[in-house]
Order: sequence, then C-alpha cells, then structure tokens
Amino acid sequence: MGESAEQMHPKKAFGWAARDSSGVLSPFNFSRRATGEKDVAFKVMYCGICHSDLHMLKNEWGTSTYPLVPGHEIVGVVTEVGSKVQKFKVGDKVGVGCMVGSCHSCDNCANNLENYCPKMVLTYGVKYYDGTTTYGGYSDKMVADEHFVVRIPDNLRLDGGAPLLCAGITVYSPLKYFGLDKPGMHVGVVGLGGLGHVAVKFAKAMGVKVSVISTSPNKKEEAIEHLGADSFLVSRNQDEMQAATSTLDGIIDTVSAPHPLLPLIGLLKTNGKLVLVGAPDKPPELPIFPLLMGRKIVAGSAIGGMKETQEMINFAAKHNISADIEVIPIDYVNTAMERLLKADVKYRFVIDIGNTLKSTSSI
Amino acid sequence: MGESAEQMHPKKAFGWAARDSSGVLSPFNFSRRATGEKDVAFKVMYCGICHSDLHMLKNEWGTSTYPLVPGHEIVGVVTEVGSKVQKFKVGDKVGVGCMVGSCHSCDNCANNLENYCPKMVLTYGVKYYDGTTTYGGYSDKMVADEHFVVRIPDNLRLDGGAPLLCAGITVYSPLKYFGLDKPGMHVGVVGLGGLGHVAVKFAKAMGVKVSVISTSPNKKEEAIEHLGADSFLVSRNQDEMQAATSTLDGIIDTVSAPHPLLPLIGLLKTNGKLVLVGAPDKPPELPIFPLLMGRKIVAGSAIGGMKETQEMINFAAKHNISADIEVIPIDYVNTAMERLLKADVKYRFVIDIGNTLKSTSSI
Repeated sequence: MGESAEQMHPKKAFGWAARDSSGVLSPFNFSRRATGEKDVAFKVMYCGICHSDLHMLKNEWGTSTYPLVPGHEIVGVVTEVGSKVQKFKVGDKVGVGCMVGSCHSCDNCANNLENYCPKMVLTYGVKYYDGTTTYGGYSDKMVADEHFVVRIPDNLRLDGGAPLLCAGITVYSPLKYFGLDKPGMHVGVVGLGGLGHVAVKFAKAMGVKVSVISTSPNKKEEAIEHLGADSFLVSRNQDEMQAATSTLDGIIDTVSAPHPLLPLIGLLKTNGKLVLVGAPDKPPELPIFPLLMGRKIVAGSAIGGMKETQEMINFAAKHNISADIEVIPIDYVNTAMERLLKADVKYRFVIDIGNTLKSTSSI
Repeated sequence: MGESAEQMHPKKAFGWAARDSSGVLSPFNFSRRATGEKDVAFKVMYCGICHSDLHMLKNEWGTSTYPLVPGHEIVGVVTEVGSKVQKFKVGDKVGVGCMVGSCHSCDNCANNLENYCPKMVLTYGVKYYDGTTTYGGYSDKMVADEHFVVRIPDNLRLDGGAPLLCAGITVYSPLKYFGLDKPGMHVGVVGLGGLGHVAVKFAKAMGVKVSVISTSPNKKEEAIEHLGADSFLVSRNQDEMQAATSTLDGIIDTVSAPHPLLPLIGLLKTNGKLVLVGAPDKPPELPIFPLLMGRKIVAGSAIGGMKETQEMINFAAKHNISADIEVIPIDYVNTAMERLLKADVKYRFVIDIGNTLKSTSSI
C-alpha cells in the first residue's frame, strides 16, 4: 500500500482526533503540507468548540470520515509565510474559521461570498484540492491559504476571539445583510447559547434594541444584566409573546432543535425578517398567510465571506466584543463534549491548545 | 326591527349577490352611502373575477357574510365627487381594487402600505367604519374614499385593465420590493393563471428574463409564443428542474394549491428570493438547509399600497400591459364561476357591467 497524500506531507503535526463515530477524541499524529507560496503557517494557540464539532465527531450528518480532527474556530501566531503572501508576516496574530478554500472563479467568490461557493472547502473533514483530508484546529499547527486567514487585532483577546470565527460571523453576517444593524431597530435573538450570546453583543454594539427569546426563564437575569439585552421573552409564555406581537424588525434564530416558526413570525413587524442560522433535522411547517399579511420573510444564512469575517473581527475588536468562554485543557475535551451535549457551558468552550497540547504525549 | 345602516343609505344601487354559501349569484337591490366630501362616486363599467371571489362566495375562508356582492377589480367613470376631492373630477376613468379603507395613522399607512394596515377595510364582505357592510364591484355604482381610488390612464383599456387592480398589483409589488425588477435578472413565475400571466408581462417589461414554471406542459407554447416568456419548466420534470438549478434571482409563486417548496428553492441562486403570493390551505414544509446554503429567502406579499397601485397602473399603461381576458355578461357569472373552478379561462373573466347589468332586471 502506497503512502497516503497526508503521509507525503513534510510538516509533522499533532492533534486530537476521533477514530470512529463514538466521537471519542484521542492524540493523533499526522502531517500538514509545506507552506506554499500563498500559504500562512501558524502555531495554534486556542480553538473554540462548536456544536457542529460534536455532530461531526459522531457522524450525525452522515458525512464524517475518520480520523477526524475537528475545530474551525482557530487562532494563533504566524510562524512562516509563503513568498507571495501579502497580508501577513511572522509573529502576526491570525485566525481561521470554517473554510480553507473556494474556487475563486464563481459568482459567489466574485461577490466575496466564498461561504456559498459550491466548491468551498471546510476546515476539517473534507477533501482539499490536493486530495488530502482537511484537519481542524484541535492541533498544534495550521497551514492555510492567506485568503482564508484573518488578522486578529492586538486588542482582541485570542481566547474569547476564537469563537467569533464561526459563532460570531454566523450572527454578524445576517444582522448586516438583512439590514438589522440600524440604530433604533428592535431585533430578537432566539436561543442564548454560543451563537445567541454573541448575537446579543453584536446587535447591542450596533445600537439595536435586543429582545432575547428563550424557552428558559432562568436565563432572563443573565441576558439582561450580564449581556445587556433590553428584554426577555419566554417563548412558552403566550401572554408575553402575545404582548410582543408586531414589535420586531427582525429575528436571528440560533436554535437547531425543532421549534414552530409561527410564534416568531407573529413577533415581526411588517417587512420583518426571520433569519435562521441553525438547521433543525426536520423541516418545520411554514405558515404562509402570516407571511403574506405583512410581507415578512423567512431566510437562512450560513457563516459569512472572508471579507466580512475580517470586518466582523475588526468590529469586535473596536467594540471590545468577545465570546464568553470556559477555557479548557485539551485532555478535558471529551468531558467538554459531554457537557456541551447538555448545553452545560456559558457559552463556549475554548481549548487552550498553546499551553496544553503537547506532542510529547503522542502515541 | 329598525332599518339597517345600508337601508338608510340614500343611493340606490343594484348588483348581483350570493345569499348563502351555495355561492350562487342573483340580482340584488341595495344602497350605497351619499358621496362624502372625500368620496368619489363612479359608474362601474367592468369588474374582474378574482379566484378569491369564488372562495368568498362559498365561505371557504369562514369569514363570509350574506348577502355578499363580490368584486375587487373595479373600473368605471366618475359621476360625482365630494367637495374636498382633489384628484378626480366627473368623467375621469378610475378604479378600485381590494381595499376601500385604512386607519391612516399606523406605521403601515404612514409608509404607503395601507394593504398591511391592521384596520384595512376590504372592498367587499366586511364592516366599513360606519358599520355598514362593504359591497364589491358586481354592481352598477361604487362610492369610495378618493385615497383608495386610482386613475386609469386614457391609453389603458378599461376591461383588460380591471384585473390589474388585484392580480396586477399582487405580482408587481413583490417584483419591485424584492428588487426583482432589474434588467438582466432572471425571474421564475410559478403558475400561469390570472396572476402568473400578468407577472410574466410585467417582468418582461422590466427587462427581466422570465421562466414560467408550471405543472402543465401544454402551457409552454402559450407562455413563450404569446406571453413572451424566455423559457418554460415543467415542475414535474426532474431533469428540466435539475438543469435549471441555481439559475434564478427570484421567483413569484402564484399557486395556491399545496406544492413543495424545495424544488423551487433549488432553482434560486445565492441570495435568491422565493415570494409567495398565494396562500395554500395547509402550510408546506420549509427545507431550512437549502435556505442556509445560499442565504435564500421565502417571503410573502399581499397586493400593494395605493401609491404603488397607481404606479403599477401607470407602468402598465406606459408599457401597454393589460390582462388577457374573457369578457362576459353579468348573467353568465355563475357559469363563469364553474369554469373558474376548473381553471377554464385565459386568463381572467371580466364582467361587462356597464352594458349588461340592468337594474330593470331587479327582483
């Protein structure tokens, strides 16, 4: 049996991988490509744990291949740049989010929407253009085309900044694209988890009034006192929901669990926009008459393009926004996954790769 | 038993009404209010038959009261104007569409979206502000607040122009609001009936490339040769639909019968917009992942505001657009309803009220 493309790669790398759909992560030696002329190589310092990592680890979407090294909220410090790299130099703080490649020739790419390019390459678990599998940020080093690398401003903390590369852009992009960023507007955020809590921060920084909509009344104090939301609606409280009818310009719905859309559509004003950024397994029913009677829309949005991701990071740095995180060592990662499954985290786990991932522990 | 408010009205009127949910129309004597200071009174010349007339006649939406005089695609000639009427004079050609009142004080009214005003008054079958029932255009005369009256330009034919007041604005408004009116765009029109055939004409006049999407292959020649559509997709032909994946900037979906949204969403490009203007009885499933993977939207739209309705009529006159109609005498109306139920009309019935409705035939 010949060497795999990965084995032919010269750059020794080390991370934690799942070997099967049990999803259990353990140390894993692999390799990364040599730094190409447009590539940036960096030492990974922190990597956020996204809920989709958990889905992928357990092959819940049916697309996983093993070994699988997750992680697409990756920040670190540049160690090497290719000869044609223009934006970065050694020592720069950088990040990589959900994607590491796109075709650069389709309409989406031409419009800075690499995230919607049909040939977009995810940061882990898929085939790269050279035939090798992409490995994510639960690892000591990354190599990526500079186009998919963002600069982390000095005043943005690396650990709390990492989740912005997925959770942050996922909520920032629809706030901007759907025009929900105008001061004085009133926006709802459904679900107060990794995505939702960042959505509240971004919307507030944009000057928008924010109502958090949640099934959990016990999140009210946290939402208002700590995150700065203006109000809180318990989605199961029909009186509260009724009283808020036709008050919102838009809603960012971060909940992936199945839930009815009708109560949310009812909260929208005329021309209101319900934007879904999580995808339930089962398609919900779409009540059409309530859409018609107010020219309302239901939309989807998935992460954002690279230009906008950099804008988002710059906006976060300017407004001192980072994710609320629990920093963990790499050997806590399997426990963290169990807790994540129970939503037992405020609001994002971030792995301290730089200080806790030691290749000397390799097997 | 005292006189009803209608009986106290001084203006004798005559039309055809349904008396119960059999929906059978027959001659009916009633009265209309005296021409108020902001009112326009006009002799009805033509009235289009909208599919919603059929629903209302048979109380299929559960909101009908009887006697019910349908008709909200009404054109005629002004016979009297109130002292404070500014826009019209005796002899002007005018029209009234789906609504005859709104609150004039809410945000929707302030934004020329009377159609979304919570207190909007439909042209027939509901209570007007004075407590009387509104009666539609299957009648010899109309009285309406000038705000809800549009001017019909001299070069727009009255008979073919009548359906524009409902069918026309219903498709024109979303083409404009959702930005699907830009030359070079490619828009789909689902369903080739009263609304769909006008949508094709408007979109073509806007310089947009049009694909008609229909279950009926036998409408292809008509769509392309007669209406000027650029292409035709048989929605049940999976090969045709597959080949058209990601080609449309937007879709105006005029079909009220239940149908899956997924194949239509698949036709949309990134940022594509599926706009529903018909409301199926049962809510369809909303496939969310395909929305996310292209920042697509599903929207609803219902008629349009008065300012835009006038713009639409002016646009139609300028571009020589009118509905393709079959003009019928009033005593054919029950037969027309039976044919409408079978979609046996190209594309809209219009009642020749002026020449065929004779109050001498009253019972």
